[in-house]
Amino acid sequence: MNSTPPDVHRSGPGPFDRLAEQASLRRRAGLRRELRPRGADSPLVDLAGNDYLGLTRHPEVTRAGADACLRWGGGSTGSRLVTGSTALHAELEAELADFTGAEAALVFASGYAANLAAVTALSGAGTLLVSDAANHASLIDGCRLSRAATEVVPHADPEAARKVLSGHRGPALAVSDSVFSVDGDAAPLAELAAVCREFGAGLLVDDAHGFGVLGEGGRGALNAAGLAGAPDVVCTATLSKSLGAQGGVVLGPAVVVEHLVNAARTFIFDTGLAPAAAGAALAALRVLRREPERAGRARTVARAFHTGLTAAGLDATAPDACVVSVRAPSPEDAVAWAARCRDEGLAVGCFRPPSVPDGVSRLRLTARCDLTDAEIDAAVGVIVRTAPQG
Amino acid sequence: MNSTPPDVHRSGPGPFDRLAEQASLRRRAGLRRELRPRGADSPLVDLAGNDYLGLTRHPEVTRAGADACLRWGGGSTGSRLVTGSTALHAELEAELADFTGAEAALVFASGYAANLAAVTALSGAGTLLVSDAANHASLIDGCRLSRAATEVVPHADPEAARKVLSGHRGPALAVSDSVFSVDGDAAPLAELAAVCREFGAGLLVDDAHGFGVLGEGGRGALNAAGLAGAPDVVCTATLSKSLGAQGGVVLGPAVVVEHLVNAARTFIFDTGLAPAAAGAALAALRVLRREPERAGRARTVARAFHTGLTAAGLDATAPDACVVSVRAPSPEDAVAWAARCRDEGLAVGCFRPPSVPDGVSRLRLTARCDLTDAEIDAAVGVIVRTAPQG
Repeated sequence: MNSTPPDVHRSGPGPFDRLAEQASLRRRAGLRRELRPRGADSPLVDLAGNDYLGLTRHPEVTRAGADACLRWGGGSTGSRLVTGSTALHAELEAELADFTGAEAALVFASGYAANLAAVTALSGAGTLLVSDAANHASLIDGCRLSRAATEVVPHADPEAARKVLSGHRGPALAVSDSVFSVDGDAAPLAELAAVCREFGAGLLVDDAHGFGVLGEGGRGALNAAGLAGAPDVVCTATLSKSLGAQGGVVLGPAVVVEHLVNAARTFIFDTGLAPAAAGAALAALRVLRREPERAGRARTVARAFHTGLTAAGLDATAPDACVVSVRAPSPEDAVAWAARCRDEGLAVGCFRPPSVPDGVSRLRLTARCDLTDAEIDAAVGVIVRTAPQG
Repeated sequence: MNSTPPDVHRSGPGPFDRLAEQASLRRRAGLRRELRPRGADSPLVDLAGNDYLGLTRHPEVTRAGADACLRWGGGSTGSRLVTGSTALHAELEAELADFTGAEAALVFASGYAANLAAVTALSGAGTLLVSDAANHASLIDGCRLSRAATEVVPHADPEAARKVLSGHRGPALAVSDSVFSVDGDAAPLAELAAVCREFGAGLLVDDAHGFGVLGEGGRGALNAAGLAGAPDVVCTATLSKSLGAQGGVVLGPAVVVEHLVNAARTFIFDTGLAPAAAGAALAALRVLRREPERAGRARTVARAFHTGLTAAGLDATAPDACVVSVRAPSPEDAVAWAARCRDEGLAVGCFRPPSVPDGVSRLRLTARCDLTDAEIDAAVGVIVRTAPQG
C-alpha cells in the first residue's frame, strides 16, 4: 500500500486551475458565495430558513427523530429496494398519503431526488414536458435528465401551456412548482389542471413550499385547488420544510408509485432516507394534524411582512404562502443589506445571480407560524431601517 | 377552499393508464420490484446492506445521531448556503478531509447529489467526460446532466481511456467508481490517474464502496492508490455505507470545493444534510479512526465468502472490497434463490435487469466486519444449499 503523495508529472496547467480563475472573476463581481456555519443556539431571529411551521426544534419532533436513530440505526443501510425500507418508512408513507388524500406515497432521501424521479419516470421518449419558466432547479434538472422534449412556457401562464399542448400529439406532462421558491407566488393550479385535462396530459406539481401551509390544515396546494386524489395529478413535497426534517415524497395514484419503485433511478440507486429523518417528519405531521391552525398562522405572518414592508415603500412580493421577496438594486446592495440585518439580529436570505435566472438580486424572507406580532414588527423595522438608500 | 374530489372530464384514457400496462408486462417477465419493509429487530443475518463496518447500530453512532437531532433539530432548515450549514457540518467536513488527506471536503444530502454535483460542476461546454461503462447510475446521470460530451469507455480499461483522451483537445475529466457496485471489482486507479496526467485531464473517483474499507485504516481507494491529496483528483463518497448514516461528500482540492459551493446545483438548491446524519457519520468516523482494524476485517470477511462459494462451485466474483456477486441462471432463479435464503434466515441482495445493464441476474452479498467466522460459514452453507440446480 502506497500512501505517500504522488509525483505529478505534467507539462501543462492542472485540470482544475481554471476554477481558480473563475473564483477570482466571481469575487470581483461580488458574486462569491461562502458557507457561514451557524451555532446550535444562534441568537438571530430566523427569516431565512424554510421551517414554516416552527417544527424543526419542536420537542416532539426532535425526540421522535432521536428515538428513531436509537431504535433503527444511524442510516437505512441500503437502497429502499434492498434493506433501506423499514416499517417506519411504510408508516410515514401511509400517513402522508392519508393526510393529503393521495392514493399512495413514496419517500425519497431528498426533495431533489423526488423531483428527478417523478419527472424522469413519468416521461419517456415521445412525451412532451411543459415546464414553467420559474420552476425549481430540481424540476429543470429532471427535464434535462429525461429523454423527453421540453417546452419551457412563460411563468404561471395556463394559456401558454394550452398553446403548446394543442400543438402536440402523444403523451404530455405539465410540470410546475405550486409556490415559486424565489418570489413566493402561487401557480394557477386549477386552471393548469383544466388545460391538462383538455389534452389528456398529466400534471406534476412540486408542493415544496405549499405543503403544510396551503389547503385545509396544511394539506397542501392540491387540496387548496380541489385536486387532491385526482387520478391525473402527481405531487411532490419535501420533508425538510414544513415537516422540519429531511427528505422528499411523491404523492399520487398507486400506479404511479408502483412505477417509480420500478423505474425511478434516484429511488432504486440511492440509499433510503435515514430513520431519524423519517421519524422526525412523522412526528411533525402528527403535530400539524393536531394543531392545524399552524398553517393559517404561517400565512398570516407572511402577509404581515408584506404589508409592513410595502407600507414603508419597499418593493416586496405578495406572498401566496410563506415566502416574501424584497428587491435590491444590485448584488452588492443585497449582500450589504443582508449583512446589516444580521448585525441587527435578523437572518434573511440573499438571492443573487446566477441562482435567480432573472438577474434580480433580492432579500428572501420566510414566515414562521411561531413568530409573535412583536417579532414581526421588530423584523420589519430592521429590514426597513437597513434598506439601501436609493 | 374546495377539497371535494374533482370532476374529471376526459374523453380519452388517463395520462398514467399506460403505467398499468407496463406494470403487467413487468409482472409477467418476473421483473416486478416490491418494497419489503423490515422491522427494527429483524432476525435475518444481513448480507444485503452496505453497513460494511457494522457501525449503523453502533451505540456511539446512534447516540451521536440522536444527540445531534435533539441539539440541532430534526432538519437543517435550508440550503447549505442559507441556513443549512451548522458548526456540526463544518466539523464533519474538516474531519473527513483530514482523515482522507484531501485539502477540503463538502457534505451533501446524499451520495447521489454529491456525484451529480461533482460531474456537472467540473465539466462545462467543451469538456470531454470519459466514463467507465460500469459506473454507478448517479455518475451516469451526472454525465447526462452535464453539457459536456461523454465517451463511455470499456470497463476498467485505462488504455481505452488513453485512446479517447489522445484524440481530444481541451479540458477532460475521467469518471470512475473505485469499487464497482454490482460485481465488487476495483478500478485500476493508479493506471487511470497516470493516463489522465499524460493528457492534463482531471480524474473523478466515486469511492462509495471503497471509503472505510480500502487504504490505510479505511482511508479509501485514493489512499490505496497513492493518490490522496493529489491536485488533479477529486473523490466522492457516501456517509451511508461505511459511516452508517446518510449523505455524500466530495473530497478534493480547496479550489474544487469552493467551485462546488458556487456552482453545483444539487448543493445550492437542496436542503442541507440533517444534523442527525452529520452527527452519526462523525461518530462513525471517530470509531473507525480508533479501530482501524475494522477495514481489514471487512475485506477478510468478503474474501471468505468468495473462497467458500467458489469452492462449492458457484460463480462468485473475487471481491476487491466488500461486495461479492454470485451469478444466477435467470431473474426468476435469482428471486427464488434470494427467497430461499431469506427463509433460512439470510438477507441477500438480488439484482436483476434493468438494474444490471449486462442483463445478468445475481445475488449480491456484502461483507460486514462484525460477522464471525461461524456466521460466515453458516451463511455460505445456506447460499450453497439453496442454489438453483443447474
